[in-house]
Amino acid sequence: MSTIWMSRYAQRTLGIKSSAIRELLKVTQRPEIISFGGGLPAPDVFPVKRFEEACHKVLTERGAQALQYGATEGYEPLREMIARNLARYGIVAKAENVLITSGSQQALDLIGKLLINRGDRVLVEAPTYLGALQAFNVYGAQYVSVPVDEDGLITEQLESCIRSGVKFMYVLPNFQNPAGVTLSEGRRHQLIVLADKYGIPIVEDDPYGKLRYEGEHIPPLVVLDRENLRRDNGFTLGNVIYLSTFSKTLAPGIRLAWIVAPEDVISKIVQLKQAADLHTSTFTQHVAYEVARDGFLDSHVKLVRQVYRERRDAMLHALREYFPHEVTWTHPKGGLFLWVTMPEGTDSQALFRAALAEDVAFVPGDSFYAGNGAEGGRHMRLNFSHSQPEAIQEGIRRLSVAVKMQLRAAHMAR
Amino acid sequence: MSTIWMSRYAQRTLGIKSSAIRELLKVTQRPEIISFGGGLPAPDVFPVKRFEEACHKVLTERGAQALQYGATEGYEPLREMIARNLARYGIVAKAENVLITSGSQQALDLIGKLLINRGDRVLVEAPTYLGALQAFNVYGAQYVSVPVDEDGLITEQLESCIRSGVKFMYVLPNFQNPAGVTLSEGRRHQLIVLADKYGIPIVEDDPYGKLRYEGEHIPPLVVLDRENLRRDNGFTLGNVIYLSTFSKTLAPGIRLAWIVAPEDVISKIVQLKQAADLHTSTFTQHVAYEVARDGFLDSHVKLVRQVYRERRDAMLHALREYFPHEVTWTHPKGGLFLWVTMPEGTDSQALFRAALAEDVAFVPGDSFYAGNGAEGGRHMRLNFSHSQPEAIQEGIRRLSVAVKMQLRAAHMAR
Repeated sequence: MSTIWMSRYAQRTLGIKSSAIRELLKVTQRPEIISFGGGLPAPDVFPVKRFEEACHKVLTERGAQALQYGATEGYEPLREMIARNLARYGIVAKAENVLITSGSQQALDLIGKLLINRGDRVLVEAPTYLGALQAFNVYGAQYVSVPVDEDGLITEQLESCIRSGVKFMYVLPNFQNPAGVTLSEGRRHQLIVLADKYGIPIVEDDPYGKLRYEGEHIPPLVVLDRENLRRDNGFTLGNVIYLSTFSKTLAPGIRLAWIVAPEDVISKIVQLKQAADLHTSTFTQHVAYEVARDGFLDSHVKLVRQVYRERRDAMLHALREYFPHEVTWTHPKGGLFLWVTMPEGTDSQALFRAALAEDVAFVPGDSFYAGNGAEGGRHMRLNFSHSQPEAIQEGIRRLSVAVKMQLRAAHMAR
Repeated sequence: MSTIWMSRYAQRTLGIKSSAIRELLKVTQRPEIISFGGGLPAPDVFPVKRFEEACHKVLTERGAQALQYGATEGYEPLREMIARNLARYGIVAKAENVLITSGSQQALDLIGKLLINRGDRVLVEAPTYLGALQAFNVYGAQYVSVPVDEDGLITEQLESCIRSGVKFMYVLPNFQNPAGVTLSEGRRHQLIVLADKYGIPIVEDDPYGKLRYEGEHIPPLVVLDRENLRRDNGFTLGNVIYLSTFSKTLAPGIRLAWIVAPEDVISKIVQLKQAADLHTSTFTQHVAYEVARDGFLDSHVKLVRQVYRERRDAMLHALREYFPHEVTWTHPKGGLFLWVTMPEGTDSQALFRAALAEDVAFVPGDSFYAGNGAEGGRHMRLNFSHSQPEAIQEGIRRLSVAVKMQLRAAHMAR
């Protein structure tokens, strides 16, 4: 049943599939299911007590201000805190370079709105974050997909891809969603040099940068870009738009993220954000500022790293214990996900249904490709942050049952 | 100074002026200024204590849930509460007809995204809410402007306007922003009949509906539409998309509003919202639910009405006392604004500068017109909700000094 006018309208939603992950989350809410599906942080590490103290402080000390309309750019002390925090990673930014957004998803939407005209080509990794594809699809993006390996985006054929005409590049350098891989420093340099040579901006999406469990920090693209430019006029002429968020370090339910960019880019995005939602909740910004301040964010991130490292290790251990040798997986040095590759001929959608029958869930790989997803047919994304180590162990055991059945079926079909 | 690539990109921000109101707010932050400029609710009536109790309850009882990702549609108990509340105004809606948005501005953005293709014509009132114009401009809307009088949108030539081709109609029936006028019941019926006859949806923006200070409640368009359709299949086939918000009843800083529409419309908008910001803050939704529940919203709205009625009366009284007889103004029966009309030949921008010199501010009328704003040249919007009665009295006195100067100058120029 449909409204009379609706069938004639709504062109912009054509071709937008409702998120596979979102639909999955519905299926997997049965309590007996162990889900590696969502990208959910662990609720057991949310700093609930600290949030409560922060709410109390904000409302008793400056309730009227925190509940009133605010500036589109965001709460000034929060922007300053974020700028100071970025400086520790070598990212030179003032508060004026920081725009608070309603989650990173809004940052992706605003960037799509700013940069994409129908038919424009965006260079993305294959696989890539499906939320970015959803945001860009609304504006009619086309894609140039570049495969990744354990060192991230493969840069060998990047120049010819760029020459074929791309509007911007969208990259997740650290512990990529979904593959869990990290872009090597050498490849980061190559990317930056090409961006500069062809004047193509890079959108650097870095939600997990602080969640490294092993190995050395690698400078973000925004830092390498600045070094490469070697210009005296500072941050203003950079090619990189840098995104990060509190969703994976504090909590996703407050929907707070930020865009770091040259001031002229920020001022355009501010205009679009003003038209999109006026500003992000003043109240959550005040509360997050009080939660994060005085070093709390750092000490809390240490705890999160410790918990997630343990869970990642539990998953890697269980995979080695239960999974057949024809199946391979990435070894993420941080983040929330790892990426499993099955032998040729397996079908991750069929595997998904078999896994549900075993009371375990994951996201089939095809959701993470810009094309028709055929390349994703033998992959699955596993989240290791949300479940406790014992549940991870049991979930991987269950999943291995489904995997072995699928492999047998694929073998017999040959 | 500009990034190299930025000058070539960013077509979508061309023609978007940064909000006049927003720029004004910056000018008017000097403490000695009495501002009738912003559309700010009175911070002295924010229920701060109730918010504090709600935060405490939410975080101690269900902190992990309230800080986690949530459904794009919104927090189910909040949607149910809103649906129950709507029923009291005769609006038949289930939770499935309610989508929570990040303020009404996001509702307008999502509707623009859903319905407007570049060049489509939107029927708006003249004057109309400038935030709606900003939201629709991003998608390349053109406009058909229909003037308002004390009974709202003038419906006489509406049919010929609709026949000239419009995609949808955007109307603020109650205590309109900026003019403060209310659409009469007779005109509401005419609007609904035409919408049905031509199959043109109406976006009914109703942020102030609960803030009526005198006169009888008039049924919203969404109710009259349903009666007009007289169909057994319920709400599903309506022509009206209804918008409302907590910004004017609880507090704007939590950025919580909602769209009420047939389920097929909601499901399309949910897809767009998912791509735009995943979902509105789980935390603020839980908190607002706890604040509003158990009748608190109703009793609080009574208080807000009492405070704002007093302020409206103070402004009307001061206008009669101080303003010259050539100047007229609307008599709003609710809401936050009234609309002043100066004699031919006055220039509201010049008046604005003269007013600032007298330490008083307002928004010049030209911002509220879809065209070049020339029609707004002799109007000003005055907000009466934000200042205390004594400040209103003094502010109108100051403004009258600037007005009289302008009238003398206009007279001499003739």
